[in-house]
Order: sequence, then structure tokens, then C-alpha cells
Amino acid sequence: MTKSIFYHAGCPVCVSAEKEVITLIGEDKIDVIHLGESKNKITNAKNAGVKSVPALVTPTGNVLHINFGASIKDLEG
Amino acid sequence: MTKSIFYHAGCPVCVSAEKEVITLIGEDKIDVIHLGESKNKITNAKNAGVKSVPALVTPTGNVLHINFGASIKDLEG
Repeated sequence: MTKSIFYHAGCPVCVSAEKEVITLIGEDKIDVIHLGESKNKITNAKNAGVKSVPALVTPTGNVLHINFGASIKDLEG
Repeated sequence: MTKSIFYHAGCPVCVSAEKEVITLIGEDKIDVIHLGESKNKITNAKNAGVKSVPALVTPTGNVLHINFGASIKDLEG
């Protein structure tokens, strides 16, 4: 099975959501990417449809925006 | 383990999110509640901190608002 990708930016909302999502889905099924530290991944995230973080891109390619921490635009700045 | 509760209102965004969440977490770990059909559950949802649907209330009591379908206020009207 392809993994889900959890994009975040280290914000409190992101960290809290990350804990919940990992507990619910399982750490082995998720790749976690910190867009604040890996700015070169921002384009990938945008292409996948991510508009804000935290967000989970599922193996089927759908984007689940979970709560709201920061917009992708703010991360690019 | 206590189950998560997935609140929704039958909207397209809700249905799409529901499918993803059930695939990711497992149908046996989620109670699905349709607030459009079970308006008596709206108070429970609000007390849990749900502000919009679709939303997932985790076993630890955290609320994950997933994308945006409708606000709780609109469902009450």
C-alpha cells in the first residue's frame, strides 16, 4: 500500500493534529513532511492540492485539510 | 478502545471525506453520525467542540475538522 503523506509546518495546530493522525492511522502508514524545513517540497504539496497545513494526502490522492495551521502561501514567503 | 465519531451532513465534501477516513482508520473504529438526519445529536457535537462538518472526534477528545462542508450553525437553522 502506498503511504499517506502528512504535511505540516511545526505549528502547534500541526503538532497536535500529527499526534492524532499517527495514533489513528499508524506511524508506519504515514510519511511526515515538515514544509518549514523542507521548502523544496512545497511545490509537490501544492501540486497535490494542499492549500494549508496540516494536511493529509491519502494514497488515493485526495487531500484532507485538517483544522488550520498556516496557508501554503505563508510558507512560501 | 473507544471509537472515533465522524460527524457529517451528507454533503459531497462530507461523503468524500468519510470514504477516505474510513479507508484510513477502519470502519470498525468509527461511529458515523449524520447531523442532518439526527439533529438531536447537534448539541453533543457542539459540546465536543465541533464547529463544522465533516469532523472527526478522536477517542482522546480532540476534534479534527476535515476540509469544510457546512458549519454547525447552518445545520441548526
